[in-house]
Amino acid sequence: MEELKRRILNDAIVQEGGIIQVDMFLNHYLDISLLESMGAALAKRFRGSGITKVLTVETSGIPLACFAARSAGVDAVFARRFQTGYMDRAVYSSEIHSFTVDKAYTLRVAENCLSDHDKVLIVDDILASGQAILGLLEIVAKAGAEVAGIGVAIEKEMRDGGALLRRMGLRVEALATVERVEEGRIYLK
Amino acid sequence: MEELKRRILNDAIVQEGGIIQVDMFLNHYLDISLLESMGAALAKRFRGSGITKVLTVETSGIPLACFAARSAGVDAVFARRFQTGYMDRAVYSSEIHSFTVDKAYTLRVAENCLSDHDKVLIVDDILASGQAILGLLEIVAKAGAEVAGIGVAIEKEMRDGGALLRRMGLRVEALATVERVEEGRIYLK
Repeated sequence: MEELKRRILNDAIVQEGGIIQVDMFLNHYLDISLLESMGAALAKRFRGSGITKVLTVETSGIPLACFAARSAGVDAVFARRFQTGYMDRAVYSSEIHSFTVDKAYTLRVAENCLSDHDKVLIVDDILASGQAILGLLEIVAKAGAEVAGIGVAIEKEMRDGGALLRRMGLRVEALATVERVEEGRIYLK
Repeated sequence: MEELKRRILNDAIVQEGGIIQVDMFLNHYLDISLLESMGAALAKRFRGSGITKVLTVETSGIPLACFAARSAGVDAVFARRFQTGYMDRAVYSSEIHSFTVDKAYTLRVAENCLSDHDKVLIVDDILASGQAILGLLEIVAKAGAEVAGIGVAIEKEMRDGGALLRRMGLRVEALATVERVEEGRIYLK
């Protein structure tokens, strides 16, 4: 997606450890018109695959998931990652490890948010190690639902998440792919 | 807003301490069509007030903020509440206390996300004690920006947040107002 690629090259900041910071348009400041186009682009790529729900994880995946769901004409669910005292009900859960902050999290989705009739599009902002998405896949499996595929704004190809998910036979669509980061410069595919 | 009121009466769950759980449509499971209508309703109430930006706080305010911003034709920003290792830049911050989880948080907004030309609509899912919104007001003030008003999905009138904000001269718009909760039953205004 050209507009997204342009924004990455113009505005993204490369941090220590090759972390790509896109919070000036994607996950802190929200460029709503760009997010809407991105959501529509993801929905278009998965058109005809019978999606009934979009699933993401708090926090950064939520805006894109909202607009992808809107374009696909379905509802969305975000897995809870932080304890806020609300999730006392029966949940599907999965333990994941975030490499970004070197911390373990439990993802939780209330059982009545997903059914075994659902066909789920998993959405996130950035695909790197794929840990969050593996956690969401476990939750979808526990619910007996089907995965239609995975749609992300940015895939970091130099990390192994995308390759791993594709080897599992999953369809992974990225709106922009970072091939490598060298000396603070981002090279897109 | 009638559709929201109906959903509250049908689907909301009252928890211990009078906490109203609306995560089957508003802040876990996301009823996208309802959220879109709610965002449009908030934008309509503040039409003509010159809003340039919508500001919310992670996590639960983000979906409504996205759709309110879209309807108002402006961008959005969500204040970071959880440490995720990304916010190394210059930030406006505010310390708040969450009564829901009895915990202190620091809200952070990168300085380049708000300017002194901005007229800000603050959006959140639920207004109870108003702590999160007071924190956002402090951040808007630190940025030298102006507050157009506060728009929430649900105001809990039996808590003092709404009254406090109105006494400060702020315009507060709620799409549904809970008058009281008695024996696990919700009474709307």
